[in-house]
Amino acid sequence: MRATIIHGAGDIRVENVPDPQLREPTDALVRVVQACICGSDLWPYRSMPPSEAGERIGHEFLGIVEELGSDVSGLHRGDLVVAPFVWSDNTCDFCSEGLQTSCRHGGLWARDGIDGGQGEAVRVPQAQGTLVKLPVTEDAALLPSLLTLSDVFPTGYHCAHTAKVNPRTTVTVIGDGAVGLSAVLAAKRLGAERIILMGHHKDRTDLGIEFGATDVIAERGEESVEKVRNLTGGDGTHRVLECVGLKEAIETAFAVVRDGGTVSRVGAPQYDEVPMDFGVFMRNVTLTGGVAPARAYIDELLPDILDGTIQPGRVFDRTVSLDDVADGYRAMADREALKVVVRP
Amino acid sequence: MRATIIHGAGDIRVENVPDPQLREPTDALVRVVQACICGSDLWPYRSMPPSEAGERIGHEFLGIVEELGSDVSGLHRGDLVVAPFVWSDNTCDFCSEGLQTSCRHGGLWARDGIDGGQGEAVRVPQAQGTLVKLPVTEDAALLPSLLTLSDVFPTGYHCAHTAKVNPRTTVTVIGDGAVGLSAVLAAKRLGAERIILMGHHKDRTDLGIEFGATDVIAERGEESVEKVRNLTGGDGTHRVLECVGLKEAIETAFAVVRDGGTVSRVGAPQYDEVPMDFGVFMRNVTLTGGVAPARAYIDELLPDILDGTIQPGRVFDRTVSLDDVADGYRAMADREALKVVVRP
Repeated sequence: MRATIIHGAGDIRVENVPDPQLREPTDALVRVVQACICGSDLWPYRSMPPSEAGERIGHEFLGIVEELGSDVSGLHRGDLVVAPFVWSDNTCDFCSEGLQTSCRHGGLWARDGIDGGQGEAVRVPQAQGTLVKLPVTEDAALLPSLLTLSDVFPTGYHCAHTAKVNPRTTVTVIGDGAVGLSAVLAAKRLGAERIILMGHHKDRTDLGIEFGATDVIAERGEESVEKVRNLTGGDGTHRVLECVGLKEAIETAFAVVRDGGTVSRVGAPQYDEVPMDFGVFMRNVTLTGGVAPARAYIDELLPDILDGTIQPGRVFDRTVSLDDVADGYRAMADREALKVVVRP
Repeated sequence: MRATIIHGAGDIRVENVPDPQLREPTDALVRVVQACICGSDLWPYRSMPPSEAGERIGHEFLGIVEELGSDVSGLHRGDLVVAPFVWSDNTCDFCSEGLQTSCRHGGLWARDGIDGGQGEAVRVPQAQGTLVKLPVTEDAALLPSLLTLSDVFPTGYHCAHTAKVNPRTTVTVIGDGAVGLSAVLAAKRLGAERIILMGHHKDRTDLGIEFGATDVIAERGEESVEKVRNLTGGDGTHRVLECVGLKEAIETAFAVVRDGGTVSRVGAPQYDEVPMDFGVFMRNVTLTGGVAPARAYIDELLPDILDGTIQPGRVFDRTVSLDDVADGYRAMADREALKVVVRP
């Protein structure tokens, strides 16, 4: 089959790889209908050292079940399914606690002999725990929104959920990428009435307003902090959702959070240390978040997508064929596209 | 009156200072019956540059109300009262949320013209919000335990409370100082059945066992981490209560916390950055805690002290007169004493 291989920074190729086959009785084979490119895929796209062998890439996809191992129940050939960006048995103690990203028998796509999502097909380990059946057909208009359940929307939701956003909390969202916009949508869904979105791209913050942002701050650095302070009587917001992953963003988060408030981070951190000094200590600020256990949120979010209450798929603004996946990466890296669907 | 003045590292003196007087109608004058020395007083005791003028010091005391401003109600001359280590109006929005350390009209003792606790008397600003009446006499045997309500016990309690310790959580407490032992007592009170105490001083960890610790780890560094892992099937504990404030301690905390767990810190941080890298992110570890709003916990904890259910005053193992306060500091700094009561 054909699949996406990254050979280094800026070097995305589509190559022939072995067709996936069932190996374990807990496996399933899924023909990919739609995949997409993640903001986190851009980190290796920007920095990976050259590699002749290259590495599989992609961790967001939905598709049709083509084969099932003998131990997989609850799924059938022909089912349309979405896969969260971490596979898991969904039965161990961590999974039972809603932390499928720490599953005792789980792992990441495109690692250690596991297929990536940006290809024609995927062998899905722990298929019964991992895959969620979608009660629509593969040509449904809802597919882009359902595809967001693999990562970007649950990631924004994890940010708002772990921050304990509720109707009594004011919220700042840092970042107008697809995760930041998803966090806006999540904060709105959790009842926040004041959602301040920090972002520099008007087309993106405009979508943020449609998703529920009440204020947009396009300024940068100290000016953006002042603006949040001005909007909140000097106090900052109860919750700050950090959806970027750069140190500057987490520093801004601590600068705009209210005393006793919570910063949640879901942007994969491009830093090793967090500035939480004596001042932050005296203000009783909590830092939470982390990699999102998408599987934990799918059952809860799916009905709202199916009935059209929320449309997280609006973060997709471009679709490419698998052959054009490299151009999809380029477009996202150049900020020409917000988030790109890949159709094998 | 006589009060304690710190003139630099290792230089504690008792000097004559102006008698406190009512200045605001919200003030009270309190004659100090018992004060104590805090682990945080040892930071300037170890590092303060020499100062001829010196600075008042001490923030934990209980005493007798001697005078009341015209706006103070609910208190009377002769009442025995305890003062939390931050004074506050107890009515503003932060106070109403239980964050009296961020009170809009509050502040710290021994700063900006406010008396310190280690003296014969104190002018108490925002007396109605700050002081809590104790229904005992000034010679009661309960006084040391009641004195802990000013700081050390609520600080340990804040650590366990913000970490959300409950009967289903395993707990590691880092530090066998008075705060760490208070955190053990607090974790026990909140129902934790497994409480692992890390500390190197047998007399202190023995008291920790009496307070509820189920395991003691005397090893240091990597060995201590391994031991927690061994005690928890390799997973670490759900909650880690960091009661030291050194970077090594917070690093240990992240090394022994279970995926999806929470580190709470109440040791005043002697560092500016917290190591929360990609690995911590992938494990969804939360960092909470901060300076304890002692006032928020006093009403809840007082009954258990009055009826003898808990005896947090057992952390005191020495009493000195005000004239001997310098020796009290020396004894605590040399680890000869765990925590020292000062009687003016």
